[in-house]
Amino acid sequence: MIYQQAFDYHTAGRGTYELSPEVDNHIHNSGIKTGICSLFIHHTSASLLVTENADPTVRVDLEMILRRLAPDGDPAYHHDYEGPDDMSAHVRCMLTNDSLTLPVTHGRSALGTWQGIYLYEHRTSSFRRRLTLTIMGEH
Amino acid sequence: MIYQQAFDYHTAGRGTYELSPEVDNHIHNSGIKTGICSLFIHHTSASLLVTENADPTVRVDLEMILRRLAPDGDPAYHHDYEGPDDMSAHVRCMLTNDSLTLPVTHGRSALGTWQGIYLYEHRTSSFRRRLTLTIMGEH
Amino acid sequence: MIYQQAFDYHTAGRGTYELSPEVDNHIHNSGIKTGICSLFIHHTSASLLVTENADPTVRVDLEMILRRLAPDGDPAYHHDYEGPDDMSAHVRCMLTNDSLTLPVTHGRSALGTWQGIYLYEHRTSSFRRRLTLTIMGEH
Repeated sequence: MIYQQAFDYHTAGRGTYELSPEVDNHIHNSGIKTGICSLFIHHTSASLLVTENADPTVRVDLEMILRRLAPDGDPAYHHDYEGPDDMSAHVRCMLTNDSLTLPVTHGRSALGTWQGIYLYEHRTSSFRRRLTLTIMGEH
Repeated sequence: MIYQQAFDYHTAGRGTYELSPEVDNHIHNSGIKTGICSLFIHHTSASLLVTENADPTVRVDLEMILRRLAPDGDPAYHHDYEGPDDMSAHVRCMLTNDSLTLPVTHGRSALGTWQGIYLYEHRTSSFRRRLTLTIMGEH
Repeated sequence: MIYQQAFDYHTAGRGTYELSPEVDNHIHNSGIKTGICSLFIHHTSASLLVTENADPTVRVDLEMILRRLAPDGDPAYHHDYEGPDDMSAHVRCMLTNDSLTLPVTHGRSALGTWQGIYLYEHRTSSFRRRLTLTIMGEH
């Protein structure tokens, strides 16, 4: 069995946006009980991440590290058409994920207790982001 | 066909633990000859990595780089409930993988000659880590 | 339905090589219209990346960042059997991907407008690289 659905998510600037409930809604709708769920983002300046969902300062610190590893407006960048957060967003995508593959067990994403699924917007302004979710498995 | 199994792995502090034989045992048990094997770790302070399995100094050097990119006890971290290796472990997870998707060919994981599958424990003490392996394909 | 095919790609030194047309040819040959396409590289010194395919300076800047995060010939490396680009190549693989999982929609890889699929050769000389593509889904 296969269930595939594209959906949009409207971001409001750089940061993380939790997708876990939306992913579980789709798994529920699919009727699939055992298998995998693959989530893909159709952009190169926003990405996907599984990280701790309990203490929000974890995501504050991840952001600090990404600013350090992928500085905005680095004078060494050649690509800066869309401003100082343009090239840094592509670097951040390289260091994180454009897809996630999660196990589906008992009709839910089998996340650990402290895991959340996040869309990570790397641009500083708002964007409409397109994602595709594909669930494969059996009832 | 789908085969899904969760299992625990007991780590003994920061470092890499090879999972390749265990993954191949599961593929053998599944009876699946052609398809994919998806491995997922249910934690945000331990991760998965495919890297060279021949010279162990490769993994010594990867560890050195991760300590540089994700320093323990960085004064800029806000999240430090569980000590200096708490936030650095989350950063290391962001830079590596929470899931791996491997091809299954002729009833085995189709790894390259020098590739090994590793669980990477990022905390400095021992933990019981939960993983789920999902194999999908045909006999 | 499953379609699996291994293929070789000859690289000519460090840099990115676009695979998007080859991946779409395989999806076309598979006859699969809806599902996922998993691409895996059987090496630990070359990797896979989805990034912007419009302005080539994006990939120039990603290369600059990788040279910074994973320096060639770093004096701290223990592993240098094959020269200054040996260990840095393994680090670059850790920071990028050994597999990609893409949605297949309407018989094509459902990439965003600006996304391209790249093989990233991290060694400075030429290599024959082995990849396996597994497509699963339905007509």
